[in-house]
Amino acid sequence: MSADKVADLPTPALIVDAEALDYNIGVMAAALPGDRLRPHVKAHKCTSLARRQAAAGHHRFTCATIRECEGMVAAGLGQDLMLANEVLDAARLGALVAGGARITLAVDSAETIDAAVRGGVREVIIDVNVGLPRCGCPPDAAGQLAELARGRGLAVRGVMGYEGHVMITEDPAERASQCSTAMELLVAAAGDVGGELISAGGTGTYDCNTWATEIQAGSYALMDALYNRQGHPFRQAAFVLADVVSSAADWSVANAGLKAFGMDHGNPELPGFDVWFCSDEHTSFSPPVSVGDRVRLVPAHIDPTVAYHERMYLYSGEDVIDIWPVDLRWW
Amino acid sequence: MSADKVADLPTPALIVDAEALDYNIGVMAAALPGDRLRPHVKAHKCTSLARRQAAAGHHRFTCATIRECEGMVAAGLGQDLMLANEVLDAARLGALVAGGARITLAVDSAETIDAAVRGGVREVIIDVNVGLPRCGCPPDAAGQLAELARGRGLAVRGVMGYEGHVMITEDPAERASQCSTAMELLVAAAGDVGGELISAGGTGTYDCNTWATEIQAGSYALMDALYNRQGHPFRQAAFVLADVVSSAADWSVANAGLKAFGMDHGNPELPGFDVWFCSDEHTSFSPPVSVGDRVRLVPAHIDPTVAYHERMYLYSGEDVIDIWPVDLRWW
Repeated sequence: MSADKVADLPTPALIVDAEALDYNIGVMAAALPGDRLRPHVKAHKCTSLARRQAAAGHHRFTCATIRECEGMVAAGLGQDLMLANEVLDAARLGALVAGGARITLAVDSAETIDAAVRGGVREVIIDVNVGLPRCGCPPDAAGQLAELARGRGLAVRGVMGYEGHVMITEDPAERASQCSTAMELLVAAAGDVGGELISAGGTGTYDCNTWATEIQAGSYALMDALYNRQGHPFRQAAFVLADVVSSAADWSVANAGLKAFGMDHGNPELPGFDVWFCSDEHTSFSPPVSVGDRVRLVPAHIDPTVAYHERMYLYSGEDVIDIWPVDLRWW
Repeated sequence: MSADKVADLPTPALIVDAEALDYNIGVMAAALPGDRLRPHVKAHKCTSLARRQAAAGHHRFTCATIRECEGMVAAGLGQDLMLANEVLDAARLGALVAGGARITLAVDSAETIDAAVRGGVREVIIDVNVGLPRCGCPPDAAGQLAELARGRGLAVRGVMGYEGHVMITEDPAERASQCSTAMELLVAAAGDVGGELISAGGTGTYDCNTWATEIQAGSYALMDALYNRQGHPFRQAAFVLADVVSSAADWSVANAGLKAFGMDHGNPELPGFDVWFCSDEHTSFSPPVSVGDRVRLVPAHIDPTVAYHERMYLYSGEDVIDIWPVDLRWW
């Protein structure tokens, strides 16, 4: 499927504004240059986009899945990947290490340390729970786990702790205060663990998390409706282009729905309009416009939105300038 | 990736209980034999599964996207496909028709009739709004649109009207009453339009919609948490298999999250446990279990769940007996 103009793209289509993307990458690289940022690829699942982040000076990346690690290595971006997630079977990661990639795996239990050893992974990071009820060991157990890992022959690069419960706080001062509370726990654990890395953070705390040695932000590149409300200096770069296929007296219907948008943060937004609801392949909104009009919907949550799409179309003005496969999907 | 045992599958994995699937297909085929059911492929996006439905006697199918039509034709299941959705560019559908497939396209406006003509589609169905604020013309405009379509050389096969607003009503009597109200509108429009088909319904109304000549149900084959609450005689056949990768004092974390589940109907369910929340690659739940345990999560909404997966694993007991590509994804 080739289309040189945005107006000719088949819909629905995930489109990315090249200028906004470059702007976002530039703003972040200025704030957190080089290894101060470890971009999280889960937010875009796209090695072409990761290459832009590498060109801006970031050569260490964060991944959420084994397949993301494999894809990044295949793309030549495997100099220093952190899988910021626990796994029980690390054999595929061990194969990447054996092939020359550098993989650092999160561990938070004796079982996951054992999986790292069995799988042939050589470097780990102790995942510490800093308040989000998800993965990570209790902060006061981190030192002991590091000792266990080193005793099994693993190198321990430090600690990570994701303050995910802080990311959705809209008020910046409150967000910074919550971040401080979370990072006190992580810094204390880092003292017990040793190593070079204190890895944490995301787009929501990139500017206030001054404790981490590296920030794992990902959403800043494409952005979404939730992060837009937090007042960050990033521009919305990703949209779902849709055609208005039906109009009634009080509403219109665009041809992008539940299979084009991650819905956990609610409906996508259509600036200037009121979004009513999404169905599998539709979004109803008001006031109505003409059948044949094209709309650009803003995803509420970028990560699970991207995961629905086969490719993203990079555009500049009216022109499609590149087609990027979303090549890091699945597991 | 090969695995003969469910226990050896990489996770997360969309797994389908072969016995439950066959049971569901059998129950539906007994209730709505042959052409009384026009199975909707949007709920499974899988031609291998559609073939099972065809083997049960259903040779007419409903599609939601052009790509679903293309995939069904490629699989040899294009005898009578209805695209129950409006499109503005029907060229790819016209190509299928020129190749010998039978495609009936929903239209609800002069613009979509024009698109059908320009694209080379020869048969249409008048889409009538029966209460859901989405596509479909006002009921009293259906006759006029049919006249317009016939004037443009199109064959009009009848009317369709999706009572989607009725599907989520849990009480059966209330659902039947709402269905009756919606179908009165459709039957009146059918009188104005003519043609053989009154196409409507879904899993939620398959047993009470006695007005439609054919029912467009899809979810019944795999089922989900919402439809399970409605008391239908179908069994849960689809699960997302996940590993417990982390456990704390009060909760555990399974490695399947927002990129493995459609979230518009809320969190997936884990029978016997309390699901707290999903993150991109995680579901937190309580009470905690052991790291290394495997869990089978029930999707809240099957359609957008399937759309996240590359394949589904058909299993019987402990054995994986087939791997079915989710080959009807995208657009």
